[in-house]
Amino acid sequence: MFLQTYETYNSINDRDLKEKNVVVIDTLRATSVITTALFNGAKEVIPVSEVEEAIELSKNFDRDTFLLAGERNSQKIEGFDLSNSPLEYVPEKVKGKTIIFTTTNGTRALKKVASAEEVILGCLLNVSAVARYISKSNKDTVIVCAGTEGKFSFDDILTAGAIYEKLKSLTDFESDDLSKASYFLYKPYENNLYDIMKYGYHLRRLEELGYTEDIKFCLTVDKFDIVPKLKNGIVRTSQDF
Amino acid sequence: MFLQTYETYNSINDRDLKEKNVVVIDTLRATSVITTALFNGAKEVIPVSEVEEAIELSKNFDRDTFLLAGERNSQKIEGFDLSNSPLEYVPEKVKGKTIIFTTTNGTRALKKVASAEEVILGCLLNVSAVARYISKSNKDTVIVCAGTEGKFSFDDILTAGAIYEKLKSLTDFESDDLSKASYFLYKPYENNLYDIMKYGYHLRRLEELGYTEDIKFCLTVDKFDIVPKLKNGIVRTSQDF
Repeated sequence: MFLQTYETYNSINDRDLKEKNVVVIDTLRATSVITTALFNGAKEVIPVSEVEEAIELSKNFDRDTFLLAGERNSQKIEGFDLSNSPLEYVPEKVKGKTIIFTTTNGTRALKKVASAEEVILGCLLNVSAVARYISKSNKDTVIVCAGTEGKFSFDDILTAGAIYEKLKSLTDFESDDLSKASYFLYKPYENNLYDIMKYGYHLRRLEELGYTEDIKFCLTVDKFDIVPKLKNGIVRTSQDF
Repeated sequence: MFLQTYETYNSINDRDLKEKNVVVIDTLRATSVITTALFNGAKEVIPVSEVEEAIELSKNFDRDTFLLAGERNSQKIEGFDLSNSPLEYVPEKVKGKTIIFTTTNGTRALKKVASAEEVILGCLLNVSAVARYISKSNKDTVIVCAGTEGKFSFDDILTAGAIYEKLKSLTDFESDDLSKASYFLYKPYENNLYDIMKYGYHLRRLEELGYTEDIKFCLTVDKFDIVPKLKNGIVRTSQDF
């Protein structure tokens, strides 16, 4: 098994993903939000790239079956039901609902890799579940970090490092330089990820906007034992497909 | 001053480089070779992308004034005078010569950023000289790693980390996530870079090809106190311009 990591989705092309597991990571906060929503009983999450697309798509649903959700510039979108804060995705709100979801980095990364056969979603909340999924599948795997504003982002790379570490305890595998680098960055901070994450531009920006509780939540390792999976444009927990 | 690091030259565009210092790194081995050649008295190095281009260009020079040099697949090019091994660039061979030079990653990275106003070349051999140059210029700086086969490569990123560390001791600056990550990767291994470099695909490939002495040479920190600079397509030491 060979593990590759991409710091963003910019340079990915379909050939890189052929016959591989693809793991999309956007720890702050899109994949953390989707994982939380599904764990708390949401029926499904439909990622879309644009705000207008989300509104258009919602017209196909009865009003009490869907929620419009997401962010632009890390803030809630006007007229939407939910922002990009995982803390809002409580069972009382999301149970049984279809969540139409648009964010700046995360949903675009999902769209970019949508043609791959197996796309799963990773974040710190479900690191072990993702590592087990990869190990069981025993297929070459590509980790695609959403990145921040098109660039390498600490939060996603450190999550890749956490997955690498769990995977190492489950199976033997080869990997590229960035996968190994993510592990070397993660390992000294495994018991206090905030101590390295705090140097990241994205985390600092969220702190400035007051999202301290969101960050604390998203930095929790292995809170949820589920693997969200993207299929035909819809994300559900992997056992629901 | 703001420092940015790019893991490869793939996603760079001219706008990213405008009014900035650009530092190109290809530690294994192109920028190490060029730095060594200039230190040992070569008049100049002309980087070109293609083998045919190198041969064509050489026709403009008298035979005793130039050397054809470079590699393909890490190996010497047939009919060329020198390979991509810094150990070959001794004073007896290179003194006063124009070196027409083509490599897979390094010279392509140089071509990609050639439009920038200030392009200097970095490697472990001249880390402190590069850091001093950046600090004195006090301009926003972009480090462009050549990478290996279009991907993130340990050797270049760790060199970026070494430059970051020297720069930190000279001046205050802000930086992006990858610059900081390069420092976090470098710092624990600063006294034995081989212990982390050895995990890199590129270094292992060179070892398999028998270039152990080259690696040892290229991993020497601060052997040379010069800064090669690219101007109008030609690399000379910065004080020669």
